[in-house]
Amino acid sequence: MINHLRQIAADIDRLLADDEFPATVRPDYLRDAVRDYPVRGGKRLRPAMLIWSCGLLGGSESAALYPAAAVEVFHNWTLVHDDIIDQDDTRRGAPTSHVKLAAELGGRFSLAADDAERTGRDFAILAGDLQQGWANDLLLRSAEHGVPPEVTVALGRRFQKLANSDLISGEALDVEFSLRELTGLKSQEVRTMLGLKTGALLQFCTEAGAMIALNTADAEHPDVRKLSEFALAAGIAFQLRDDYLGIFGVYDSLGKALGNDLREGKATVMLLDTLRLASAADREKLLGYIGRETYSDADLDDVRRIMRDSGAAASNEAEAARLAEQARNILRSFPDNPYRQHLLDLVNFLIDRER
Amino acid sequence: MINHLRQIAADIDRLLADDEFPATVRPDYLRDAVRDYPVRGGKRLRPAMLIWSCGLLGGSESAALYPAAAVEVFHNWTLVHDDIIDQDDTRRGAPTSHVKLAAELGGRFSLAADDAERTGRDFAILAGDLQQGWANDLLLRSAEHGVPPEVTVALGRRFQKLANSDLISGEALDVEFSLRELTGLKSQEVRTMLGLKTGALLQFCTEAGAMIALNTADAEHPDVRKLSEFALAAGIAFQLRDDYLGIFGVYDSLGKALGNDLREGKATVMLLDTLRLASAADREKLLGYIGRETYSDADLDDVRRIMRDSGAAASNEAEAARLAEQARNILRSFPDNPYRQHLLDLVNFLIDRER
Repeated sequence: MINHLRQIAADIDRLLADDEFPATVRPDYLRDAVRDYPVRGGKRLRPAMLIWSCGLLGGSESAALYPAAAVEVFHNWTLVHDDIIDQDDTRRGAPTSHVKLAAELGGRFSLAADDAERTGRDFAILAGDLQQGWANDLLLRSAEHGVPPEVTVALGRRFQKLANSDLISGEALDVEFSLRELTGLKSQEVRTMLGLKTGALLQFCTEAGAMIALNTADAEHPDVRKLSEFALAAGIAFQLRDDYLGIFGVYDSLGKALGNDLREGKATVMLLDTLRLASAADREKLLGYIGRETYSDADLDDVRRIMRDSGAAASNEAEAARLAEQARNILRSFPDNPYRQHLLDLVNFLIDRER
Repeated sequence: MINHLRQIAADIDRLLADDEFPATVRPDYLRDAVRDYPVRGGKRLRPAMLIWSCGLLGGSESAALYPAAAVEVFHNWTLVHDDIIDQDDTRRGAPTSHVKLAAELGGRFSLAADDAERTGRDFAILAGDLQQGWANDLLLRSAEHGVPPEVTVALGRRFQKLANSDLISGEALDVEFSLRELTGLKSQEVRTMLGLKTGALLQFCTEAGAMIALNTADAEHPDVRKLSEFALAAGIAFQLRDDYLGIFGVYDSLGKALGNDLREGKATVMLLDTLRLASAADREKLLGYIGRETYSDADLDDVRRIMRDSGAAASNEAEAARLAEQARNILRSFPDNPYRQHLLDLVNFLIDRER
């Protein structure tokens, strides 16, 4: 799997670096911002999922390449706007788009610090807006690369439903949860949010790959629905596992620090379940840990103990494992081929990691 | 023309009010924000331009309806993000999207004033993002309403180029001009900006109408190009006339107040030409008027005198008239029919108004 993933990443990197769409964007610093996140690289897991879903059902990799690039650019514009909303300063080890633009424009137009900050944010909003157009353009260009126009139109409509409407609804729910009292949130609400914020774009990847392979405009085709279910299960399993590793994972100097979610008071299924299931004393203790500036190793050990004692840690892991198995079972219902193996390996990679 | 315009506005109003796309957006207040601007009404001039361009070349109005609705929703999302960037509080007599969301969310989640303001802005960013998806979905649905899929894909690609890339580039240049010294700006730069910010979406309207009527995916078809030139000329003429009326117009309590552009130091062709052509004394005087809080009638009379004496006012009017005539001449090169007359009337309506 890893070798093919690297090859896909290289193909996507090249396609996006050379692509014509941003070339006519003005001014030049906005054009650079439009290209910035998409060409920063990354594992390109979403494009791989689309291409492998296409290959699983016998479709050609080349027909799936433009939709795969579209998904990657779409993912990146949501990051640009998310980073504004979350007021994040760094992304993949470099300044976020709005921070980079603030520095660039502050210097270029001699702006005071708060004007530079606002202007950087304004242009980052526009950069993300342009990237959404770029993503749509890449998707529509499938019609020049082996996807019939009626299938291309159908892909475009699924893109607006899953990647735009569902994903952004999930992002909005995530922002809303940060405004609500943790004690008033239900873990089922978080699962719904995860399905939209993380699952929907993965569902698009598998649905698009399947529709290209089957040469159908019908998103209700049984194989399309099955692969969509696979993606949703795998996406939520990945996110539950990610939440678990945020507390129980191996420290990784490149990844997010352990305890970050706790500091931000992020409403995870595991946290909400712990608050529901723990003893009154542990519950109060855990609420006291939320939102602190730093955590000692002893603090984190205590949080882990509370989560384990409540049973929430184990049930989180069990739910992730169950969803991963559901995802694998769906894959196993298709005839074996190298793409099926890549997708199975991908599920294992997402779930069995320790950081 | 006016009666047909009213009928188109009613059709668009109904289509957008009933449309399914926003129905699954969550949370409910974000769904309301997505619907808000598009259903606030308005003259719906852009949809009319698209439908009439289609009719001019013998196409059916019904095939043009979904692309026309798409253009209107697209226009509205750009307003949502523009209003954030321009920090505007009202739009068509009601609070802007970010202001409305700030009030709603501040109350709902008991937020402090600055948190409410930031949260309102964050959700308004997402509302605009969703509206861009809605616009694309409406456009793609043309394929279910009489537009062949290969033409639909071609319309989609023109949409990304003209409505997304060119229009947003124009918006970005406009923001940049507000950061630069007026004395360092060339009026030609402003014309380029106007062509992108105002012209490009109108170009899409006429190109889309023509491509639907001609049943072609070829945006290089001579009739498509001619109507695109018509739209660009009409759009810049409208904007030049608008700038003129901002200083010389009849006071209109519903429209923007006279002198607003002057207060904001907006870089109009007329202002830059005045600064270039006026006597040194008048030039200094005019620079002194820019950015004041209020203007007396005597102040505005003096500004008008300076603009007239420099010759810039007359050359602005001459340029608008020349572009309008160019637009009319392009229309006259097509065979006469009721749609041609509507488009000619529209040009006159945009240019001959006094407020």
